[in-house]
Amino acid sequence: MGDPGVKPLRVELGERSYPIRFAADGLRGLPEAVGRVLPPGPLAIVTNARVGRLYLPPVRDGLRARGFAPLVVTVPDGERAKTLRVAESVIGRMLAAGLDRTSAVVALGGGVVGDLAGFVAAIFLRGVPYVQAPTTLLAQVDSSVGGKTGVNHARGKNLIGAFYQPVLVYADLSTLRTLAPRELRAGMAEVIKYGVIRDERLFARLEREMPRLLAADAAALAPIVRRCCEIKAEVVAADEREGGLRAMLNFGHTFGHAIEVLTRYRRYKHGEAVAMGMGIAARISRRLGHCDTATVQRIERLVSRAGLPVKPPRFRRDAWRRAVMADKKRRADKIHFVAVTRIGQVRIEKIALADLVAALDREGESR
Amino acid sequence: MGDPGVKPLRVELGERSYPIRFAADGLRGLPEAVGRVLPPGPLAIVTNARVGRLYLPPVRDGLRARGFAPLVVTVPDGERAKTLRVAESVIGRMLAAGLDRTSAVVALGGGVVGDLAGFVAAIFLRGVPYVQAPTTLLAQVDSSVGGKTGVNHARGKNLIGAFYQPVLVYADLSTLRTLAPRELRAGMAEVIKYGVIRDERLFARLEREMPRLLAADAAALAPIVRRCCEIKAEVVAADEREGGLRAMLNFGHTFGHAIEVLTRYRRYKHGEAVAMGMGIAARISRRLGHCDTATVQRIERLVSRAGLPVKPPRFRRDAWRRAVMADKKRRADKIHFVAVTRIGQVRIEKIALADLVAALDREGESR
Repeated sequence: MGDPGVKPLRVELGERSYPIRFAADGLRGLPEAVGRVLPPGPLAIVTNARVGRLYLPPVRDGLRARGFAPLVVTVPDGERAKTLRVAESVIGRMLAAGLDRTSAVVALGGGVVGDLAGFVAAIFLRGVPYVQAPTTLLAQVDSSVGGKTGVNHARGKNLIGAFYQPVLVYADLSTLRTLAPRELRAGMAEVIKYGVIRDERLFARLEREMPRLLAADAAALAPIVRRCCEIKAEVVAADEREGGLRAMLNFGHTFGHAIEVLTRYRRYKHGEAVAMGMGIAARISRRLGHCDTATVQRIERLVSRAGLPVKPPRFRRDAWRRAVMADKKRRADKIHFVAVTRIGQVRIEKIALADLVAALDREGESR
Repeated sequence: MGDPGVKPLRVELGERSYPIRFAADGLRGLPEAVGRVLPPGPLAIVTNARVGRLYLPPVRDGLRARGFAPLVVTVPDGERAKTLRVAESVIGRMLAAGLDRTSAVVALGGGVVGDLAGFVAAIFLRGVPYVQAPTTLLAQVDSSVGGKTGVNHARGKNLIGAFYQPVLVYADLSTLRTLAPRELRAGMAEVIKYGVIRDERLFARLEREMPRLLAADAAALAPIVRRCCEIKAEVVAADEREGGLRAMLNFGHTFGHAIEVLTRYRRYKHGEAVAMGMGIAARISRRLGHCDTATVQRIERLVSRAGLPVKPPRFRRDAWRRAVMADKKRRADKIHFVAVTRIGQVRIEKIALADLVAALDREGESR
């Protein structure tokens, strides 16, 4: 199936607007799509060994055939590639190959490659255009859309970066068939999140189609991924730099992040931590009176059906509290909490720190 | 003199617009000006040892008195501070001190501090606001205005960076009294450039007032510096990312840059290289028939009166050619040359590479 049967989207950001295209042909259509948004010229394809082995030949050869001069830069797998040092070495490779301001970058891979390559594009000669070609579900529905780029610092993840929009996102659903099942499930956490925060119909569809989706059925995935991108694009268009609305995308993420920190990013994938974080956020929403029990149960059930954990392990109460509050310390005694009110709707609530702490403690006891 | 008697300017860039304020009171007015554009909160003052010794106390204490919580980060003197490694360590200091997204950066120093601190602001937590407080003539009339930030790469200067606008530029003329005379003269090269490219009256005023300006007379400097900022602001507002008009700011810079490269950035200050570069550009403009001899002589004379070199040393012809062409290699057989047509006016000319090479060779012979 070359055409997944879903139309492109457009992220509306004035002169920084860009299309999101969908395909299902092993990235064979990427070169043509790149040719539509960039004039032929020098170009760096940033990828990792695993993705490169699977998809590089048609991409590189197709770009060459269209008059591009691709330089392939392979970066290490996983989070350890997301450092300033790796960014500098990618830039060094680009400079050594003579790439200049007329060059561009193609990020071919998952979230790590996208974040890193996007950041390299943002700072190479003060910025060159880049294309996101996400090959994981998480990257397709989340990190490739919205222009957040960056690397980690020894003191934490994503602490160095830029808001820098791509000129094209090219999401090929067929690449999800080569994704490890655990990665696919982890990405599903973000998909479920979009249903919870913005679209009851999407949520209901996930309830019906989860088995087909987990089987990486491109025809089933295509409209789902498209709808997630659409929601993200809407939110980002309304709030590019996270002043207000964009915060709703963080539903479950404060708790998820705390779980990742307390387990040192080793035990869980980001999506798994977010899945548990959504469970916590839903239960606290109910305790604070924002939603009913049925809503919480529907969320928990769908998360479980995606093969994701709903309840976090037991942490020491004070460590847990501290980890949850770490993000929030500057906001004094009130914090912003993304509360679910019903499936498809959230509200950003300013709540007293003491109330959240009390709810968190009761959450701990209920486990 | 606390008030230099010149009005603030505004760089018009839509929602990224910002004021340029002028003062002459040893930076005592900076805290109040910062308070006008930023809410009180955590803030990093990036400076170097020399500038910090002279100006830090009133700035830091004044910011504290206004409710800011300043962290002082001192970086090494000179170009060696402009690396990703130093940027990362500044970011590490900021994170260790608990600075977050509500923080800001104040760049207190010359062009190196401004470029580095502006870049840190651009990439710290994907961008926080920053203030430029330039303390050299070069930084006041050039690098602090326009949003070019960045660091060097082992392969060359300013190869890593971002276009990222400050929220305020605060140019205190009195700081130029503590500037080394050679630094002041070097900055004067860029001042002369503004006269050549855009303002015959400014040029004529420089011809009349050079001795007072070189004596760092703040009253004489204020309207001059303001006018240079105004020209730069106009050009930047019309062309933020150097698509066309902004190229005129590079008058003399291609040759200046080649001189810097061939002398390994050691023999000349940037402004001195630009001074010689303007001489070359003027003489080539005449040879190519764009201006008359009187124009060239006026430029050469003013450059000399500023205590700056007009003619470069003799380089080996092929090394010289290669250095000049290095920037241009991608533009095939035509290159863009900023030609002076008369004092106050330049034109960007597409000329054949062969013609430039011939003119360059004759330039070499005339020395």
